Amino acid sequence: MTSHLHPLDPLTADEIHRVADIIRRHVAEKDMYFRVITLVEPPKCDMVPFLDQEHDKSPDKGFATLRRPARIAKVHAYIKKEFNEFRVNLDHSKVISERVHHGRQAHIDGEYVRKVELACMADAGVQEQVQALKLPEGATVVVEPWTYGTDGMSDMSKKVTMCWFYMRLSPDPDANHYAYPLDLCVEMSEDLKVAKIFHLPSGEADRAATDNNGLPKEFDRRKIHDTSEYYPTLPSTEQRTTTKPYHISQPEGPSFSISGNAISWEKWTMRVGFNYREGMTLHDIRYDGRSLFYRLSLAEMFVPYGDPRAPFPRKAAFDLGNDGAGVCANNLKLGCDCLGHITYFDGWLVSHSGDPIKMPNVICCHEIDDGILWKHTNPRTNNAAVTRSRVLVLQTIITASNYEYIFLFYFSQDASIHYEVRATGILSTAPIDVGDTVPYGTVVAPGVLAPYHQHMFCLRIDPALDGHSNSLIVEESHALPINDPAVHNPFGVGYITKPVYIETETGLDLDHRINRVFKIVNENKLNPTTGTPVGFKLLPCYSQMLLAHPSSYHAKRSEFAQHAVWVTRQSEEEMFPAGEFTMQSLGGEGISSWIQSRRDKEKRSVRNRDIVLWHTFGSTHNPRAEDWPVMPCEKMVVGLKPVNFFERNPGLDVMISEQEMNLSVLVE
Amino acid sequence: MTSHLHPLDPLTADEIHRVADIIRRHVAEKDMYFRVITLVEPPKCDMVPFLDQEHDKSPDKGFATLRRPARIAKVHAYIKKEFNEFRVNLDHSKVISERVHHGRQAHIDGEYVRKVELACMADAGVQEQVQALKLPEGATVVVEPWTYGTDGMSDMSKKVTMCWFYMRLSPDPDANHYAYPLDLCVEMSEDLKVAKIFHLPSGEADRAATDNNGLPKEFDRRKIHDTSEYYPTLPSTEQRTTTKPYHISQPEGPSFSISGNAISWEKWTMRVGFNYREGMTLHDIRYDGRSLFYRLSLAEMFVPYGDPRAPFPRKAAFDLGNDGAGVCANNLKLGCDCLGHITYFDGWLVSHSGDPIKMPNVICCHEIDDGILWKHTNPRTNNAAVTRSRVLVLQTIITASNYEYIFLFYFSQDASIHYEVRATGILSTAPIDVGDTVPYGTVVAPGVLAPYHQHMFCLRIDPALDGHSNSLIVEESHALPINDPAVHNPFGVGYITKPVYIETETGLDLDHRINRVFKIVNENKLNPTTGTPVGFKLLPCYSQMLLAHPSSYHAKRSEFAQHAVWVTRQSEEEMFPAGEFTMQSLGGEGISSWIQSRRDKEKRSVRNRDIVLWHTFGSTHNPRAEDWPVMPCEKMVVGLKPVNFFERNPGLDVMISEQEMNLSVLVE
Repeated sequence: MTSHLHPLDPLTADEIHRVADIIRRHVAEKDMYFRVITLVEPPKCDMVPFLDQEHDKSPDKGFATLRRPARIAKVHAYIKKEFNEFRVNLDHSKVISERVHHGRQAHIDGEYVRKVELACMADAGVQEQVQALKLPEGATVVVEPWTYGTDGMSDMSKKVTMCWFYMRLSPDPDANHYAYPLDLCVEMSEDLKVAKIFHLPSGEADRAATDNNGLPKEFDRRKIHDTSEYYPTLPSTEQRTTTKPYHISQPEGPSFSISGNAISWEKWTMRVGFNYREGMTLHDIRYDGRSLFYRLSLAEMFVPYGDPRAPFPRKAAFDLGNDGAGVCANNLKLGCDCLGHITYFDGWLVSHSGDPIKMPNVICCHEIDDGILWKHTNPRTNNAAVTRSRVLVLQTIITASNYEYIFLFYFSQDASIHYEVRATGILSTAPIDVGDTVPYGTVVAPGVLAPYHQHMFCLRIDPALDGHSNSLIVEESHALPINDPAVHNPFGVGYITKPVYIETETGLDLDHRINRVFKIVNENKLNPTTGTPVGFKLLPCYSQMLLAHPSSYHAKRSEFAQHAVWVTRQSEEEMFPAGEFTMQSLGGEGISSWIQSRRDKEKRSVRNRDIVLWHTFGSTHNPRAEDWPVMPCEKMVVGLKPVNFFERNPGLDVMISEQEMNLSVLVE
Repeated sequence: MTSHLHPLDPLTADEIHRVADIIRRHVAEKDMYFRVITLVEPPKCDMVPFLDQEHDKSPDKGFATLRRPARIAKVHAYIKKEFNEFRVNLDHSKVISERVHHGRQAHIDGEYVRKVELACMADAGVQEQVQALKLPEGATVVVEPWTYGTDGMSDMSKKVTMCWFYMRLSPDPDANHYAYPLDLCVEMSEDLKVAKIFHLPSGEADRAATDNNGLPKEFDRRKIHDTSEYYPTLPSTEQRTTTKPYHISQPEGPSFSISGNAISWEKWTMRVGFNYREGMTLHDIRYDGRSLFYRLSLAEMFVPYGDPRAPFPRKAAFDLGNDGAGVCANNLKLGCDCLGHITYFDGWLVSHSGDPIKMPNVICCHEIDDGILWKHTNPRTNNAAVTRSRVLVLQTIITASNYEYIFLFYFSQDASIHYEVRATGILSTAPIDVGDTVPYGTVVAPGVLAPYHQHMFCLRIDPALDGHSNSLIVEESHALPINDPAVHNPFGVGYITKPVYIETETGLDLDHRINRVFKIVNENKLNPTTGTPVGFKLLPCYSQMLLAHPSSYHAKRSEFAQHAVWVTRQSEEEMFPAGEFTMQSLGGEGISSWIQSRRDKEKRSVRNRDIVLWHTFGSTHNPRAEDWPVMPCEKMVVGLKPVNFFERNPGLDVMISEQEMNLSVLVE
C-alpha cells in the first residue's frame, strides 16, 4: 500500500485520513479533536540500511522491492481537554503507543485563538476600557492574541493568552493596525475569561502607579498620521514606476529534475520533507553520489523582546515550537515569490476533525545565477577561463503574525550549501506617549514604539560525511612565537593551524579574532591528496547570543541561545533544542539540559560517532525607522563548505561561460 | 576645452597626450619614461562647492557654465633612473610641482619584469641549476617574478625581484604551471643580475643545511599528475553538460541610465572613476537627492604568506600599491563575466612613451534580481504584498599573477550598499617533497604545497551624510543589570543601547558578542521620527586581523591590518592606509603612523568633522584541496545600511511583484 512512498515522504492525505480513522476508533470519544498528524521519520537504525539499499545501484531490484521501515504517524489530539499523543503504525493500522502530556500545551490553535479574540472583545469590562480610549471616529479595534511568554506570574498548567490592542483608522482590512498600538492589553484565561487588564507603560518604568482609575488614557490625536501603510491599494502607497521588467528565460527548462520529493540537480541529490513544526526539512543530501548530510532543518527559533516593563516580558515567541513553521507556511505564488522556472511542493496538515488540509506551494524550487563561480586569466597568454555559478534554491516563507521569515537553502556547483534567513514583515509595536523615548526601543512613527528584540535561530545539522561516524574539529590560526629557539620563525611572519577534536558533548563559541573554524570530519576517511580526514566546515553567522539574564525565563526556555555552536550525539528524541513543548514552557528541557543531565552520569563521546551540530545565530534587532512600516529583508547567512572532502574543486567541470550560451545584451 | 568634463572624470586619452607633451617639453631629457599619468581629484574645498552648484537644480545654468576646479594631473616618470613626480595643471598647460622620490620605487613595471624574466633565464648559473633539476622531457620552465616583500635582507633603495620557478609539462601555454613548483628561486638585482639563488625548503626548517652542493635535488617523477588543469582546451578538463541555459531578458532595457561617468538608477545617483592604482572608485553617491558618500574605494590590500621558512617571508603582495588594481583590471567580456543588459566603462593608462593605453570594459554595470525585498501577508485577510529586490551591480575584476579578485558594489532599492570581494584564481604554490607535510600549508596535489596566507582588504569610506560634518558612534547592546534597585528590570529580560561618540582618530575592533555597531551619523541633522541623528551603519565582515608579529616587516608595512575599523579626519594626502609607496616599503607610513604622529602633538577630533571610516577585512586563507586547481570564489561582504537616515523604508514604493510582470514558468 505504501510501497510507492519513500520512508521520508511526509504523510499523504490518504494516510492522514487513515490515521484519523484509526485514532477515532481507538479513542471512541466524541469530545476529541486533532491537532497534529505527522510522519515519525524512521529511526536511523532502520533508515540507514534502507538508504544503503536505495543507493546501491549494482543489482537494481527496483524501488518497490526494497525492505522498508514501517510508516509511523505521530498524533496530537485533545480528548476531554487532555493533551494526548499517539503513535500509529500505518502498515499494521494499529495504535502502538499513547500518553497524556499532563500540564503541557500543544502548539497554538488558530481556532481557539479566534475564540479568545471574540471573547475578549465581547467582555463588558474590556468594552469599558475601549470606550475610555475615546478612539477617533471610524476606528476599528484590532485584537492581536499572542502566546504567553512565561514570566512566572501565571499558572502554567492552564493556557494563557495575551491580547494586545491596536486599531485601524481605514475601513480597509489591510490597513496597518500596528501603526496604532493602543494603551491596553488583556490576559485571557484558558476558559476564555478576562484574567487581567493591563495598561501599557510609556516612560521607563511600569505603568501601574500612574494609572487613570483603572482606565486607560484617552487616545492622543497627535498620533494620527498617514505614513504607515504598505498595502498597495491603500492611499499614500504610491509605487515607483522606474523598475523595468526583468525576466528569466530557460529555453531548455530547469537543470533540476524532481521525482516525488526527490530532487536531483548538478550532481546533488536530496529529499524534501515538510512538517507542521519545522516546515521544510532536507534529507539524505549527497553530492556526486557521496553522502554529506543526513538531515538539515531549522530546529527552533526564539524572539524575546528586550523591553523590561510589564507586561512586555511576556512577548517571547517560539515561532517553531509554539506556532509551527509548517502551520505558518505561505502559499508561494508563481512569479511573486520567485523568478524563472519553478516547481512547488505542497504540504499537508490536519484539521480538528481529522481531515487533511492541503497547504499548496509551501516550498519552491528554482535556479538562480550567482555571478562568477571561478575565473582565471593567464597573464602570459591573456586567455581567460570563467564559469558562472548556477545555484539551486529551495525556499519557504512563514508568516508569524506581524513578521515574515524567508528560509532558503542554496546549493552550489562547488558542493557548498548556504542557508539564509531573511527577516521581513512588520515590527510588533507598542504605544509610547508623543515626545517620550526609552532606551530599549525606537520610535518609528508618532506614538509608535518598536521595542528592541532578538531573533535567535538554531540550525540543526545532522552530518553523514562519507558515513555516519563523524567528529568535530575546532581549528584556529595562531601566529608562531618569535624568539623561541625551538620554533623556526626568523622573520616573525609564520602562523599555523592545529586541529583540536571535541571529545564530548558541549556548547562552543565563535571567535573570528583567532579564525576559529568548526569542521565536521570523518576520521575514518582520509583525503588522498591532503592526507587529512575528509570534512565540511561551518561558515557561521556571527551574532550576539541571548541578552536576557541566565536566571530569566527567557534564558531558561531557550537554552540553545547560550552558545553559537553545540555538538551532541544524534538522537531521534532530540530534535528541538528548546525542548519538545515550548508553549508556556518553564525551561530546563533544552540542549544544555540534555548535555548536563548526561554529564552528571557520564560524559558522552562525540568523537567518531553519529553526531549532530547545532548552530545558533540571529540578530539583535534594534529597529531602524527604515524597518517601518514594512521591513526590508534583513539577511543572515550560514554556510557549509567542503574542506578537503574532495580531491579538487568539485566545480572544476562547470561549463565555461560564453556569450553564445548566455546571450547578454550590450547597452551602449 | 574641458568644460564638457566633470571634475571627477578620469583623464581622457587626449588629456594624457597633452600631459605627456607638457612633461616631455618641461624635462627635455631623452633618458626618461612614464609610469603614471592620472587625475588628481580636486580637493574637497573645491569639489564640494562644485557639487553644491551641480545639484542645485533651482536656477539651472547648464553644466558647462558651472565654476569648476582646475584639471590637475599627477605624473610618475623615471628620468635617468630617478623616480620623479610632477603635477600638471591642464587648464594652464603648466607643470605646477615636481619632486624626486629618492630611494622609493614606483609600482611594478610590466616591461621591466619581462626583462628580469629573460635575464634570469639567460644566466648561466641559473641554467646550471635548472639542468640539475633533470626535468622530464618536454618540460617548459616558467619563471614567475614577484615584487620583493621586505624581509630586511636586501638593500631597499634598489629594486629587488624574486623569481619563482615552475614548469609546464604540456606544450599548451595555458597549462597550469603552478602544478609544478620547482625547487628554485632567484633574487634578481635592479640591474638584471642574479643576486642570490635559493633552494626551497621541504620540511619544517630552512633548506640551506641540507643543500646538494649548491644544486637543487632532481625533480621527483612521482610528482607528475594529470589532475591540475583548468583551461578548457587541455586534456582532463571535461565539462559537465547538465547546466541548462539561463538568460536574462529585459524587454524594456535596463532601469539605469548613464551619461558619461554618471549613473542614475532607482533614486540613486553616483559617478564612476577609475585609476591605475585603485581601479574602480565611486563618487558623490546620493539617494533620492540626499548626499550619502563622497567617495568609496578599495584603498589597499595585502597578501602576506604565513610560511616562516626563507625565502617565503618575501611573499607579501600589496596588490593595489605594488601592482595597481587599475593596471591589473580585466577586459570584461560580454556574456562571460555578467548576464543581462550591460554597460561597460573603459579606463586609460599610459605607456612608457607617454601614449594613452585604452583598457576596455574595466567596469561593468548591470542589474540583478536578489529575491524578495520585503513581504507581508496579513493573516486576517490572507492578502500578501511582496516586492522583489532589484540590485544595481558595478563590477571590476583584477588578475594579480595567480589570483583573481572580483570587486563588486551592489546598490539596493532600500538604500543599502554592499561591497563584495570574491577571491578566485589559482593558489600560489611551493614545492614539497612527496609524503612531507607542514603545519602552515596544505598539500593540494603531489609535490604541491599551497601555503597559508591572509588576504587583507581595506575599504575607504568617505561619508557625506546630509553634508560633510559627520561623526562615528559605537553602539553596543547590553543587558540591564538585575537586582539593581535603580534599574527597572524585574524579569531580567531588559537590554539597552547607548551611543558612544568617538572623539579622536583611532583604530577599533569588532565584537559581535556585544553587538558592537559602527554608525556614521550627522549630528546636525535629526531624524524627525526617531529624534536621533541621521546615520548609516557598517555591516562589517568579521575577519581575523594580521597574524604576523607586530615587529615583523609584514606588520609594519600593513598598519591598516591591525584593526577592523579606523576613523580619521579626511585628507587628500591620506588615501592609502599602508602609505603611498608600498613597493619594498619598510613600514611606518600607514594609517596608524598618521594617527600616532598627530597624537604626539595634539589628538585630532573626529566629532562632527569631515571624517573617513576605514574597514579592514579579509580572510585567513588556509587552502583546501577544493581550492585547487582553480579556486571557487571565496566571498567577503561588507554593507552600509541606513539607520534612522530616512523616515521610513525607502523601498516602500517598490512595485508589488506580480506574475504578469515577472512571467515565471511553472514546472509541473
